[in-house]
Amino acid sequence: MSESEQVEQPALGELVEQNDLTGIRLWLAEHHPHEIADELARMDSSQAIVPFRLLDKDRELEVFEELDPPHQQEILLGLRDSAFHELIAEMDPDDRARLLGEVPAKVATRALAGLSPQARKMTAALLGYPEGSVGRYMTPETVVLHRDLSVGRALEVVRAQGHDSETIYTLPVVDDGRRLAGTVQLSDLVLLDPETSIKDTVDVLVPRVSAVSDAEEAARLMQDANLLALPVVDSEERFVGLLTIDDAVELIEAADTEDIARQSGASPLAGHYVAASVWAMARARSVWLLLLIVAATLTINVLQVFEATLEQVTALALFIPMLTGTGGNVGSQSATAVVRALAVGEVRVRDLPKVTWRESRVGLLLGCVLAVIALTVGTLLVQDLEIAAAVALSVIAICTWAAVIGGAMPLLARRVNVDPAVVSAPLVATLVDATGLLIYFTIARAILGI
Amino acid sequence: MSESEQVEQPALGELVEQNDLTGIRLWLAEHHPHEIADELARMDSSQAIVPFRLLDKDRELEVFEELDPPHQQEILLGLRDSAFHELIAEMDPDDRARLLGEVPAKVATRALAGLSPQARKMTAALLGYPEGSVGRYMTPETVVLHRDLSVGRALEVVRAQGHDSETIYTLPVVDDGRRLAGTVQLSDLVLLDPETSIKDTVDVLVPRVSAVSDAEEAARLMQDANLLALPVVDSEERFVGLLTIDDAVELIEAADTEDIARQSGASPLAGHYVAASVWAMARARSVWLLLLIVAATLTINVLQVFEATLEQVTALALFIPMLTGTGGNVGSQSATAVVRALAVGEVRVRDLPKVTWRESRVGLLLGCVLAVIALTVGTLLVQDLEIAAAVALSVIAICTWAAVIGGAMPLLARRVNVDPAVVSAPLVATLVDATGLLIYFTIARAILGI
Repeated sequence: MSESEQVEQPALGELVEQNDLTGIRLWLAEHHPHEIADELARMDSSQAIVPFRLLDKDRELEVFEELDPPHQQEILLGLRDSAFHELIAEMDPDDRARLLGEVPAKVATRALAGLSPQARKMTAALLGYPEGSVGRYMTPETVVLHRDLSVGRALEVVRAQGHDSETIYTLPVVDDGRRLAGTVQLSDLVLLDPETSIKDTVDVLVPRVSAVSDAEEAARLMQDANLLALPVVDSEERFVGLLTIDDAVELIEAADTEDIARQSGASPLAGHYVAASVWAMARARSVWLLLLIVAATLTINVLQVFEATLEQVTALALFIPMLTGTGGNVGSQSATAVVRALAVGEVRVRDLPKVTWRESRVGLLLGCVLAVIALTVGTLLVQDLEIAAAVALSVIAICTWAAVIGGAMPLLARRVNVDPAVVSAPLVATLVDATGLLIYFTIARAILGI
Repeated sequence: MSESEQVEQPALGELVEQNDLTGIRLWLAEHHPHEIADELARMDSSQAIVPFRLLDKDRELEVFEELDPPHQQEILLGLRDSAFHELIAEMDPDDRARLLGEVPAKVATRALAGLSPQARKMTAALLGYPEGSVGRYMTPETVVLHRDLSVGRALEVVRAQGHDSETIYTLPVVDDGRRLAGTVQLSDLVLLDPETSIKDTVDVLVPRVSAVSDAEEAARLMQDANLLALPVVDSEERFVGLLTIDDAVELIEAADTEDIARQSGASPLAGHYVAASVWAMARARSVWLLLLIVAATLTINVLQVFEATLEQVTALALFIPMLTGTGGNVGSQSATAVVRALAVGEVRVRDLPKVTWRESRVGLLLGCVLAVIALTVGTLLVQDLEIAAAVALSVIAICTWAAVIGGAMPLLARRVNVDPAVVSAPLVATLVDATGLLIYFTIARAILGI
């Protein structure tokens, strides 16, 4: 839909390259902040600053908040001091803390210097929480209600204090010690009789998380429990902030993108595909490739052991890529399924025996089906029933083995506190390659009697 | 956090197996609806119905709405007629339509028969939209405001009509012809002066989508634009419903899960990992495996062409798994990165030349680094500089080629309207296997002079 719209008119990038200021102004007026941010993210920093400077003051912040921290940083470095400080001061506290947590210390110091003492204190408090924790993503600016209020009085409090809050839809309710009792929804305050007591409408069973707990887990909890905002507490159960759904959605998307990259054996790229440098892309992918090619030398060792067999029956070599490929495919499927099931909470570490038993049966079943094809192809192509039988039996054994390895490894990784997504498809494939060759040649030697 | 909590007490599944009704009741009272739904999803239907029947009437619906349609269906089939009809009648219209769209016709007819004429009409209208379209996921039950109202009057309308709405936080604003003017936020109605005109506060630039447009795209648009609800219109721009953020988050998660499964060459499983049957799992994975093993016979053909070379220099066979493995890894990384960039909108079809050029340079760079290792390993293990040189040069050529193929194929798939995620890592790996062998033996023959 937006694809076809944009084909009709020039992209913002082209207008910037032609330095067509009138065209840029027109383009900006006709697009939403999130579309403008999308286009800026595709340009390099020297280009992106041109349209950004042409934005109205009030839209500038909206566009800026839609950008990722790396792009925000690039824009900031292109601004004059006054514009720089103004932008930082106007950001939501949680977005500001996240940005300052990622920029070089020099930029962070310059940014903090321009803030009011109160804003500086709030930002410093958020930055005090560990990276990746809920504290870094929550918003501390909320209207807090006391449990002894009536619904009507509570609505007055919201009217008086709500203007500075990031959200007023979910409202934390606390007792005298600021300990969290639960939450009420703004919809209840609007729809219920004003005389109702907050005590009688507060949801005391609402999930809550500690500020130092894992942000991704908290985001998935919000998704599971269908919450617009999740209350965050300190170690003494006192309310300290709300994690809002927009941040939760971003956390989940970032985690999924990271898992997907890891599954292909690459480190996650910290930026836009089109804007990243070729060097950065190669670096993100090289670490695992280097480890894997070293691990792959194991296959050379295995084949050297069977070199005499290969010299006797060269035809055995013909099936090596098909066998290692099939084993790798089956293992990758299992690993991908289990990594995802772990990520969304369908499988837990203690399910290891259950998962292994399942995957072994799935692998055996798949192996039997694939063996029929291997047997047919083998017989047709090499016209040697013994070799074909060795290949078919190997397919069954390798598929079963690959499914078990692929299913068990992510759980074992989680048990030793390693991100299960590190058990990537390529890692499983490489491990299955070497062991699969061992299986193949052992079976072949037995059948061929050599 | 929840992991450690649950270790201390028995899981619901164990209590059900022991038929410990008191224990089950206690467990249910202490857990949130989403936790109960999680546990039910892990059981088979004959087990899950036991704790479900023990739930209080008011929590029954909450738990039911947290379940996926396949599990909802299993629960429904275990209920008596009165309980069955009550549950269906109480569901949100969009959830009901989605469920009825997935159950067998017989169950759907039975369910529709128990509804009030108005609810039946509403459900039928939603079911009239194509599968996977926004119409299937939107909620038609909303408070609609006329643009000529004042803020104070609008709040009265919300108070009078809001009790039946799924959400009142985003309110559609329409003109005389029910054409969508934009939306207002409940927070504005609460915080602004009651005399303000809705006309002056309505956000007219808010994104909107057609009811027949793709639901996943709409969900990603909501995420990009940070919306809690997205207005949906018909072909004449008339307001027909709202897509809410909880449904959008589910759509995005489901799409990501599907993409991840496809990336490993499996069809997405329509259910919970632990609850799916071994047959269903094998079936979901078998289609691509069968295609791929047939495609892999190409590698046998290629090797047959070079069989004479192999007989002369058997040592060449030792490097086959390492070369095909490395090519597969590089190609999978490129494919995964481009599929994800397409999914989240960072790359478009017309970026094909740009992507190919990028990936070729990334592949060349990676190839050069990996070639150094291949050269070292090759020299050490086979003590033959010519073979080692052939392997190293092949690594460079194969990596470049694999990166280009992996990067270009998802874009070509999208261009011919095939889901780019079917360009799975295994598909790329298999294609690169055969072509990689061709490259390797051509280079080896040239260097060895055979």
